Amino acid sequence: MPSEEIAKSASAAAHLEAETPRSLVVRFPESDPLMMDAGVPVGPLQIAYQTYGTLNAAKSNAVLICHALTGDQHVANEHPVTGKSGWWETMVGPGKPIDTDRYFIICSNVIGGCMGTTGPASINPSTGLPYGLDLPVVTIKDMVRAQAKLVDYLGIDTLFCVAGGSMGGMQVLQWAALYPDRVFSAIPIAAAARHSSQNIAFHEVGRQAVMADPDWQAGRYYENGLKPSKGLAVARMAAHITYMSDEALHRKFGRKLQDRSAPTFSFDADFQIESYLRHQGSSFVERFDANSYLYVTRAMDYFDLAADYGGSLAQAFKGTKTRFCVVSFTSDWLFPTSDSRAVVHALNAGGASVSFVEIETDKGHDAFLLDVPELLSTTRGFLGAAARARGLA
Amino acid sequence: MPSEEIAKSASAAAHLEAETPRSLVVRFPESDPLMMDAGVPVGPLQIAYQTYGTLNAAKSNAVLICHALTGDQHVANEHPVTGKSGWWETMVGPGKPIDTDRYFIICSNVIGGCMGTTGPASINPSTGLPYGLDLPVVTIKDMVRAQAKLVDYLGIDTLFCVAGGSMGGMQVLQWAALYPDRVFSAIPIAAAARHSSQNIAFHEVGRQAVMADPDWQAGRYYENGLKPSKGLAVARMAAHITYMSDEALHRKFGRKLQDRSAPTFSFDADFQIESYLRHQGSSFVERFDANSYLYVTRAMDYFDLAADYGGSLAQAFKGTKTRFCVVSFTSDWLFPTSDSRAVVHALNAGGASVSFVEIETDKGHDAFLLDVPELLSTTRGFLGAAARARGLA
Repeated sequence: MPSEEIAKSASAAAHLEAETPRSLVVRFPESDPLMMDAGVPVGPLQIAYQTYGTLNAAKSNAVLICHALTGDQHVANEHPVTGKSGWWETMVGPGKPIDTDRYFIICSNVIGGCMGTTGPASINPSTGLPYGLDLPVVTIKDMVRAQAKLVDYLGIDTLFCVAGGSMGGMQVLQWAALYPDRVFSAIPIAAAARHSSQNIAFHEVGRQAVMADPDWQAGRYYENGLKPSKGLAVARMAAHITYMSDEALHRKFGRKLQDRSAPTFSFDADFQIESYLRHQGSSFVERFDANSYLYVTRAMDYFDLAADYGGSLAQAFKGTKTRFCVVSFTSDWLFPTSDSRAVVHALNAGGASVSFVEIETDKGHDAFLLDVPELLSTTRGFLGAAARARGLA
Repeated sequence: MPSEEIAKSASAAAHLEAETPRSLVVRFPESDPLMMDAGVPVGPLQIAYQTYGTLNAAKSNAVLICHALTGDQHVANEHPVTGKSGWWETMVGPGKPIDTDRYFIICSNVIGGCMGTTGPASINPSTGLPYGLDLPVVTIKDMVRAQAKLVDYLGIDTLFCVAGGSMGGMQVLQWAALYPDRVFSAIPIAAAARHSSQNIAFHEVGRQAVMADPDWQAGRYYENGLKPSKGLAVARMAAHITYMSDEALHRKFGRKLQDRSAPTFSFDADFQIESYLRHQGSSFVERFDANSYLYVTRAMDYFDLAADYGGSLAQAFKGTKTRFCVVSFTSDWLFPTSDSRAVVHALNAGGASVSFVEIETDKGHDAFLLDVPELLSTTRGFLGAAARARGLA
């Protein structure tokens, strides 16, 4: 198959995932919509999710994993579009820190996403066409409320743990604040209680890159089969830099040339880092919907947990009984340790039980996805202690 | 005039600057070309420059200022396209640290630029059309050799000082290495002896943003009057974030909303930082040529001063008599202090006379352009001492 054909078929597959995902699915009828922060109901609401392990009889061993910006529900199985292994297989599986032999693990695609939960590529019931930008803007709280509907549907009252990194960590904090009695323990990793000005700026660049692509067509590109792939690739490239650290880039790539011994004095990808970034951009567009990228970045930008509590983050966690394990990475400049420390201070002020671990690594923000032994051992240890407290065998 | 008309006329003015700049100009005939690092001669070579102050009889008081990526020769006069004041008026003028009452100051537009020195928008003598990408790729050394031709033309043997920030600082280091006997003193500010992997990555994102714009037309957009303005604006937005510090963004913008009291739940520029970035993007495209952006970013990427000296930066400066004042800023994450420190170590190893000042500021990389009192006093003090050593009154 010529590469253009492969690209087309991968893209068609991604689009199918939005409506008929290769995943577990629950569809709430239009009469049971999700009331969004934007003040508009969305329904029917479809949620695509995966589970691993077995729910015990007491329904007390459920772990909800919240995925990051461009992640999805395929935590620990082969990805149906890319064929790659699950995004958190270092963490989740038999005998792994989030142990599928002990816990029942749930992960759902976020609302606004493109892997089967209602998002901009889903059919808008009032037009019969994909929503595009007619889907209301999504917030982190909307994502969490959609997850709560799924947890209700699964008949689970209290989650043993809610865990996630980056945007997933924001959802963890939102869960703990919104449903304190439903979260026994919480692991927000490489996260923040509010998105910084610099991070909003990087997201805005990505959105402008998508919207600058004439194939974006104000978000109505589904109808004619063109996609803003060039703009989305640029957005991904810019974002990808922020997920790595300067040190790791220096270690991995430095100024090494790509398959050549001298610079070509051209605009080709002379340097390995250029070739790597171009690959990151072009592979991303085969699995992700450009409008979803607008929605999920916007959700992170709008996130400011304290704002709902009179500007006091401590108030958001006041009297909470949830046990927290807050994790940050030394080389993460997107969600630096100071962001996690602010969460820890608020939790302490709110009287919560908190462990805080800053992990020394040069792997940057993406460390939460990678094989970082201290992250794995921290999670294992924290969950083990929480399981004993919860009376899990 | 409607804003679209203003934009068109500003754009036309920018294009005129490439051929007939409102600046001093020297044009070297085709018989006296610049031999480029790419192995190709470029001629006729036009250099557009500005001077301030008076050259003394001994021709011993000349200061060459090297401009940064998107800067130009208009250091201390009203910009002919934007009407704004010169980009270094905090530093250069009567009684200022680089004192136009004492020194003769020269600044030329770099080769590859778009303000009158030969660049991609200039006419290619072999076609009668603008070069576009047919201009050979430019290096920092090409920029410096072009400047040396100008300095020769002005009859100046030894420059009293070569000074500049960022890409300008790279040129300062290249001058000192290439022409050690012609540089009495040197002030590289917020610079590095080689471009890092992370910085190449950010530049590559910018270039891909330009090239993703269908109006770019493989660089041949001059002919039909379309310009890749959207792509270039995205490139500028991404770059602009790297010029500021997280702290300064937090201080200036934080999460403040733009002319509204609540988020609109839309993709409008709700946050001040978004509105600010969009403005930076759209104003930049009115004064800068997209192809020039490709050339000057590439020049920085290729810069690796030690590579010409068997990988030893100390060797580049061995036995130099130039006095150096190396300056960095604490919050500059694009050219962090460690980059300047590497230069200082090499200078020390080469036996050079070096002052090194790391200035505490939250203004990020752009601090070299801003009213930072310690930068001004450092420059004034260093130049004063150098002037005494040089026997200048």
